[in-house]
Amino acid sequence: MPESTARLEAFSDGVFAIAITLLILEIRLPAAGTPVTTAGLTAALASLWPSYLAFLLSFWVILLMWINHHELLKLAHRVDSPLLLANGLLLLFVTFVPFPTAVLAQHLATPAANAATAFYCATFLAGSAGWHLVLGAIVAGRRASGQAIPADQLAGIRRAYRTAPMVYALSVVAAWWQPALGLLINASLWVVWVRLGYRAKAPAR
Amino acid sequence: MPESTARLEAFSDGVFAIAITLLILEIRLPAAGTPVTTAGLTAALASLWPSYLAFLLSFWVILLMWINHHELLKLAHRVDSPLLLANGLLLLFVTFVPFPTAVLAQHLATPAANAATAFYCATFLAGSAGWHLVLGAIVAGRRASGQAIPADQLAGIRRAYRTAPMVYALSVVAAWWQPALGLLINASLWVVWVRLGYRAKAPAR
Amino acid sequence: MPESTARLEAFSDGVFAIAITLLILEIRLPAAGTPVTTAGLTAALASLWPSYLAFLLSFWVILLMWINHHELLKLAHRVDSPLLLANGLLLLFVTFVPFPTAVLAQHLATPAANAATAFYCATFLAGSAGWHLVLGAIVAGRRASGQAIPADQLAGIRRAYRTAPMVYALSVVAAWWQPALGLLINASLWVVWVRLGYRAKAPAR
Amino acid sequence: MPESTARLEAFSDGVFAIAITLLILEIRLPAAGTPVTTAGLTAALASLWPSYLAFLLSFWVILLMWINHHELLKLAHRVDSPLLLANGLLLLFVTFVPFPTAVLAQHLATPAANAATAFYCATFLAGSAGWHLVLGAIVAGRRASGQAIPADQLAGIRRAYRTAPMVYALSVVAAWWQPALGLLINASLWVVWVRLGYRAKAPAR
Repeated sequence: MPESTARLEAFSDGVFAIAITLLILEIRLPAAGTPVTTAGLTAALASLWPSYLAFLLSFWVILLMWINHHELLKLAHRVDSPLLLANGLLLLFVTFVPFPTAVLAQHLATPAANAATAFYCATFLAGSAGWHLVLGAIVAGRRASGQAIPADQLAGIRRAYRTAPMVYALSVVAAWWQPALGLLINASLWVVWVRLGYRAKAPAR
Repeated sequence: MPESTARLEAFSDGVFAIAITLLILEIRLPAAGTPVTTAGLTAALASLWPSYLAFLLSFWVILLMWINHHELLKLAHRVDSPLLLANGLLLLFVTFVPFPTAVLAQHLATPAANAATAFYCATFLAGSAGWHLVLGAIVAGRRASGQAIPADQLAGIRRAYRTAPMVYALSVVAAWWQPALGLLINASLWVVWVRLGYRAKAPAR
Repeated sequence: MPESTARLEAFSDGVFAIAITLLILEIRLPAAGTPVTTAGLTAALASLWPSYLAFLLSFWVILLMWINHHELLKLAHRVDSPLLLANGLLLLFVTFVPFPTAVLAQHLATPAANAATAFYCATFLAGSAGWHLVLGAIVAGRRASGQAIPADQLAGIRRAYRTAPMVYALSVVAAWWQPALGLLINASLWVVWVRLGYRAKAPAR
Repeated sequence: MPESTARLEAFSDGVFAIAITLLILEIRLPAAGTPVTTAGLTAALASLWPSYLAFLLSFWVILLMWINHHELLKLAHRVDSPLLLANGLLLLFVTFVPFPTAVLAQHLATPAANAATAFYCATFLAGSAGWHLVLGAIVAGRRASGQAIPADQLAGIRRAYRTAPMVYALSVVAAWWQPALGLLINASLWVVWVRLGYRAKAPAR
């Protein structure tokens, strides 16, 4: 039923698009005491750098996850109950991202930066469980329909899916010690997301 | 007119996707007095457990309702005025869910937890009227077009649709007495939602 | 170019779906001084009746406008620059609705109810210009392509489109004198929206 | 792969539609000290004119960018990695627009109007890099597939794409000196956006 895949993708795309656009709501000037001089406003806009950084990081990772989600669902031949529920868990994680982003933005320039960054990174660690479940549901669905995913194609994806949680776990630990390092390790996975998407795409041509 | 069903579904999907993603906006650290120490932030994040729980409960129920809505609309052969209006009432309920979710999150750890939980459960009791109206509009539309839904298929759905409001009513009463029990009864209907969806799907193959 | 109409409709549907779902964000318990007793919360929830009413009114009118928009665009055979810009103006109005809704909710139970209700009704009066422009762009586009809309079909729509602004103007005046009457007159147009939609649909079968 | 273009467009459309609808959330009466007399509310609504103006400006520019994005993507024959990432950068900019809009609305009637307006205009200057990257990705993709875009068609687009950042840069400087002039120059580009869209469309017929 490719039609069903289409609707699952459309719903997922909607959630990705909304989550990515809601991020901007977290960047805001303090309502009380709005600065009303040129110098005051300029300083206020500059002091929001943690918000801009958190926005950039989360925007980019959601965009890459959207691309990757697209590629991953291409592997599914049908939508069954396990896939719907596993995909729901993945979307739960995507939907959650704006909250740790706001926590990070609020605290990156404070002494609580390490806890905020570790919380941010831990969200992605938890989220990688969603990716594993979706992949598992697709693999099982393909096997059940007698059209198992070729072993070599699956091996590449599995390797990436095993690497990600380990790197995310490392980023949590690093963030607690040195927030900037934690974010750097977290963002280093962008490379995996980008490359994985296209590795999975290739055999489908 | 299958095309019309497609657009009704697309609009409904959009509303489901937005409502489910807006839930996260209800989870927020207090803006005033933002904690700026590691210990303070850790404690603040932990103290938000009612928000996380309310988010989880509402996310999951909206996801299951989305799946169910999908299955239900497959039964419709055409979109007529009664179906559009009944579906509108159902979406009114879906759109409303973020508010009782916020009320629940704000009060679950306070002495007002029973009123908050009862209000949350009562929303779902009211919402089951929307499901009945949509089902009724589809049944009438099929009958009018001379392609009535097979009696045995309809019986299964009707049974579930009669069970749900009774369980929701029970959850309201239980919530007033014991909030945690009310939420448990409320969430027990997830099983009905999941199973019903696939029972309805089967005959369509 | 039916494809182009599809994308215009999809974008418009998105805006309608988001605007209708954002309405709920206007219903909120006061953050400061959150009531923490059962009686306090019950009273607070009950005192939000203006918010519930404003939500209901705006939800329903946006839903009916969405249905109507659907029917109206069916008359268009192609998407040209005037239609895109006229439709943009209409969407500007749809997007604006959550603001007067919030103003109405905040003030319906205060001595400023008349100004709030008149502002709410005036928004719809202004919005009817958007409908006229979209209709005008479609009529011109059909005429230019040598497939003018049949005169009798157009006459019915034109009659409704002339009635609406007059009734909305009346509702503004009435609201200033008696808010409840203004809202009643405003909501009386729901009948026009519902009936018009299906009158326009009929000839397309 | 036209199918891939469809999904990229659908996602982009979703982001445009959400960003344009979120703008309204920035228009709000002060929660504290809500005016409760007719005269007080009327004055409060009138004093929000900077919010209405900022809303109008940003709504219209996002709408025109949406139309333009539509036309631009029609030139792409396939979706490749560079196009996905360039389009992501463009969407990052679209998503960001509600923030400078809020800054503009909050400060247009204050002595900080010049900084707010310059920040607003500078956002569009930065955003024009996104348009260049998307165009570059499409041009490279077409060339790689042996179906380069005709030189005369490309020349017109390139001219407009070179004009825009220069005008935006001018608007930043002008805004710092005279905010109203800066906004006027910014809005003057609407003409380019509207005309460009249709120039690009013509050859595709």
